[in-house]
Amino acid sequence: MKPKNIVFIAQSLDGYISDKKGGIDWLHSTPNPENDDLGYLDLMNEIDAIVMGRNTFDVVCGFEGEWPYSKHLFVLSHSLNKVPKKCEGKVTILNGNVTAILEQIHNKGFLNLYIDGGQTIHNFLEADKIDELRMTTIPILLGGGVSLFNEMSIAMEFDHLSTTVYINQLVQSHYRRKR
Amino acid sequence: MKPKNIVFIAQSLDGYISDKKGGIDWLHSTPNPENDDLGYLDLMNEIDAIVMGRNTFDVVCGFEGEWPYSKHLFVLSHSLNKVPKKCEGKVTILNGNVTAILEQIHNKGFLNLYIDGGQTIHNFLEADKIDELRMTTIPILLGGGVSLFNEMSIAMEFDHLSTTVYINQLVQSHYRRKR
Repeated sequence: MKPKNIVFIAQSLDGYISDKKGGIDWLHSTPNPENDDLGYLDLMNEIDAIVMGRNTFDVVCGFEGEWPYSKHLFVLSHSLNKVPKKCEGKVTILNGNVTAILEQIHNKGFLNLYIDGGQTIHNFLEADKIDELRMTTIPILLGGGVSLFNEMSIAMEFDHLSTTVYINQLVQSHYRRKR
Repeated sequence: MKPKNIVFIAQSLDGYISDKKGGIDWLHSTPNPENDDLGYLDLMNEIDAIVMGRNTFDVVCGFEGEWPYSKHLFVLSHSLNKVPKKCEGKVTILNGNVTAILEQIHNKGFLNLYIDGGQTIHNFLEADKIDELRMTTIPILLGGGVSLFNEMSIAMEFDHLSTTVYINQLVQSHYRRKR
């Protein structure tokens, strides 16, 4: 089976993943009375593990309550050497370039990966290692913040696979890298 | 009848309206064998006039063949004082701030406007004078170029109205400003 790296992320209309103050409250500003999972469960059923950088990991560790992931999490960090008690055994710390990281993860038997966090997504895109983009657009112009995409050295074409509108407001499009 | 300002524009997955070299060839990279108008004719039927800045006007003037617009065009420029022969009588040059410009256009009886061009769209957004966004996303990451949206002083919420996928690849979403 061929490995696959999937990005699943929400952005504002102007392409930000957090607002000017670093906040993400606007992600949940659309009423969702039936708690639609917005494609998250489908993603979780398709993947073997999650990969994110240190910054995103810190945000996740700050969430109250139970550890949120049912899949193993790889955290990319040069400085982190231990993880909080509540995720012991569920998290592996890795470092190195994208190719080396993927080799280590694949060697452990994890092939389908959910790639999360702005910097990690950027590094994987720059190495042309993203196979699928699943982008959910929230109908707000933030006017500033942290951009999902940064400058990249090459252009990359994708194939549109499908688009779903969730809770009448959130447009989620799936794209596959043309290779 | 209430005036309405509509943005209708195509962007890359990473939010650019032209590529690193200023090119827009990638806009037409998706095969369109039946010449689908991608929502353009519907827009033209809804509007009374078009508004764009000098840069976009120069691009349009450079197109070969007949003058492309059936609706009157307002060009915003402080320096332009005459227009090319092929669009004489079809173009009015205006200048001033967004509110003053809109007043002049409305006074001439044009109420529903198509707002085009990166800088003009930005100025209208900054003045909170955009009522509808119709954004078509082309499935390519350009990695750099001219951004559709720039930093803005305030955040603005929109309502998602509809999403249509054209020629299997281009996702067009319509949004209305929440007021």
